[in-house]
Amino acid sequence: MTALLVDRIGVLATNDPALGDGSLGRRTGAALVAEDGRIAWVGDAGAAPAADERVDAAGRAVLPGFVDSHSHIVFAGDRGAEFTARMSGRPYRAGGIRTTVAAVRAAGDDELRATARRLAAEMLAQGTTTVEIKSGYGLTAADEARSLRIAAEITEETTYLGAHVVPPEYAERPGDYVDLVTGPMLAACAPHARWIDVFCERGAFDADQARAVLAAGAAAGLAPRVHGNQLGPGPGVRLAVEAGAASVDHCTHLTAADVDALAGAAGRTVATLLPGVDFATRQPYPDGRALLDAGADVALATDCNPGSCYSSSMALCVALAVREMRLTPDEAVHAATAGGARALRRTDIGHLGTGARADFVLLAAPDPLHLAYRPGVPLVAGVWRAGRRVA
Amino acid sequence: MTALLVDRIGVLATNDPALGDGSLGRRTGAALVAEDGRIAWVGDAGAAPAADERVDAAGRAVLPGFVDSHSHIVFAGDRGAEFTARMSGRPYRAGGIRTTVAAVRAAGDDELRATARRLAAEMLAQGTTTVEIKSGYGLTAADEARSLRIAAEITEETTYLGAHVVPPEYAERPGDYVDLVTGPMLAACAPHARWIDVFCERGAFDADQARAVLAAGAAAGLAPRVHGNQLGPGPGVRLAVEAGAASVDHCTHLTAADVDALAGAAGRTVATLLPGVDFATRQPYPDGRALLDAGADVALATDCNPGSCYSSSMALCVALAVREMRLTPDEAVHAATAGGARALRRTDIGHLGTGARADFVLLAAPDPLHLAYRPGVPLVAGVWRAGRRVA
Ligand SMILES: [Zn+2]
Ligand SMILES: [Zn+2]
Repeated sequence: MTALLVDRIGVLATNDPALGDGSLGRRTGAALVAEDGRIAWVGDAGAAPAADERVDAAGRAVLPGFVDSHSHIVFAGDRGAEFTARMSGRPYRAGGIRTTVAAVRAAGDDELRATARRLAAEMLAQGTTTVEIKSGYGLTAADEARSLRIAAEITEETTYLGAHVVPPEYAERPGDYVDLVTGPMLAACAPHARWIDVFCERGAFDADQARAVLAAGAAAGLAPRVHGNQLGPGPGVRLAVEAGAASVDHCTHLTAADVDALAGAAGRTVATLLPGVDFATRQPYPDGRALLDAGADVALATDCNPGSCYSSSMALCVALAVREMRLTPDEAVHAATAGGARALRRTDIGHLGTGARADFVLLAAPDPLHLAYRPGVPLVAGVWRAGRRVA
Repeated sequence: MTALLVDRIGVLATNDPALGDGSLGRRTGAALVAEDGRIAWVGDAGAAPAADERVDAAGRAVLPGFVDSHSHIVFAGDRGAEFTARMSGRPYRAGGIRTTVAAVRAAGDDELRATARRLAAEMLAQGTTTVEIKSGYGLTAADEARSLRIAAEITEETTYLGAHVVPPEYAERPGDYVDLVTGPMLAACAPHARWIDVFCERGAFDADQARAVLAAGAAAGLAPRVHGNQLGPGPGVRLAVEAGAASVDHCTHLTAADVDALAGAAGRTVATLLPGVDFATRQPYPDGRALLDAGADVALATDCNPGSCYSSSMALCVALAVREMRLTPDEAVHAATAGGARALRRTDIGHLGTGARADFVLLAAPDPLHLAYRPGVPLVAGVWRAGRRVA
């Protein structure tokens, strides 16, 4: 029941328009008080109530913890050689998601758990106070279920992604694999998951298959999300909007109709951009500016995984979104915090209004814009989750 | 006289072809011994000699400390608002180098020293064990000289850059400014500098002025380096090669003749690429691949400064060089270590052969390629300079 006062904050990003200016709810000369794991008070430093403990921000910025709404950190193995070959333009024989699937099936629980925990700790140290974790490298009922059990030890935001790719043993009968994903695998996984996701892309699952997966998930109590429009234009975005998905992720290749659909779905379906993937696969970047100008909700996430983006850095996502997608620094920081919370349909995180969970980050910089202005520099000076210092 | 053994190294990058494979001199199953500040022994872990202290790398990578051969960290003020305006496509009235010049002239020594030391410490914590620091924000004899005195407290690689830009008070008589730079300002600065540099670019100094600056510097015992071909094609590269400069930096806009000139100057003049600048100013990236294929020597550096790139991260430079300039991960790590050393004409740093200064970095990753494979993630787990642990 101790109250913690953080004062002498340089710029406080609240993401709350009642508390400050612009999309970031910026406020200077502010202090905040956390109590019982929640934000109890935000206001001018001079008016701050007494507290048991004090952190002197000494002019440094405070912002909500990052909400990384898309990751795949339950895996085994390393695809560094594949990365090197891809970036060097050299052919690489094996590779792809199936490499990781084989490694996961061969790995013990302890190995999967150690990797996931190491990466979750690495994320926390970089200011990510909430992370979503997907299955999708097991692709058997047992391997998907144990991946989700391990994910659920780390976060409540767990996503069943049996429909990541068709595994080799079903290559000749993909319909049977969809039956497995929507049948026994779903039954094994649903108790450990909040969400269901599907990779709706040429080479993965088509629109009809994706609809069947999301419908089965919904019947089992799992709310929908979609991987779509990563490798080329496709039905992913419109399908996600139709299904009332909380988010459609990647959105690298969008038509004008897709942008319109996302704008029309504002308040329901978030466009989650994954700039680290576009970076690490040398893909073009989506036009985040056009999405925001059209009125769509935008989030940023890492997609942390060993294949297409092995970065856990939300700060890098912010810097890339500014450089490559033409978000302003404030819009990018908002998308990496409040945007992620919206993509997970969470109102208790992603902002620092009274009553929010006291998840916040102290930067070694006066203003959150330094996350874009100082790319690559580890700027996180402290991390608090539910009011407790964790890094 | 204590000997330090580092063993159980995952991949050791030596940059020494006698010790390992490829440009990076890669070696697995290796150990190294540092003694009296130098590398005393490198070999197979099983054959390692006894030592007084031991660091267990536990399968993690070790590489030479980064050599950041281009920075401007003696400054005052912050240009975050200018950065935001530039990246958001909004006009911004003030701005440019002259803003920082005004701030530096108004700042006390203690303020300049505090900023430079803070950034040097930030660099060291990220694995940069040698940094070059330029003057260039004072632009009076006294302000340039004190900037260099402060830089010389931090590094022996100090560079006199009076010819950074023509200050406002000389706007109508730039020839008089060149006389100052090559006359009384040079006399005040030469005792504190190893190098002389000139910004040879439209809007700064033309080829004749640049030649005059470098010649005056040489007469005062300062070895030449050049800022060239940043904002457009120009004479910078060919001038640098003619003058026998150790390095020509930026090289963003190169003609085929420039690439040929750099290839012909291999072993003398390094092409130093500054990808953080291209990132933070939304410029195109130079074709690093073409430079390497032509046979030129390539280095990577940050250019850390408050205007065009406020990043101190050599790891980000490596990741950007792979993504955007098509260097392989090994080539990029080599350019950020051995390349920087060559750009400073240093043979004692940038590699881990016997006799080299014991400047090395332990990564939280098994292979240095993770610097590109895991962009944005703080991977530095330990830093040693001259055999002493410093981070
Ligand atoms: Zn994904
Ligand atoms: Zn420079």
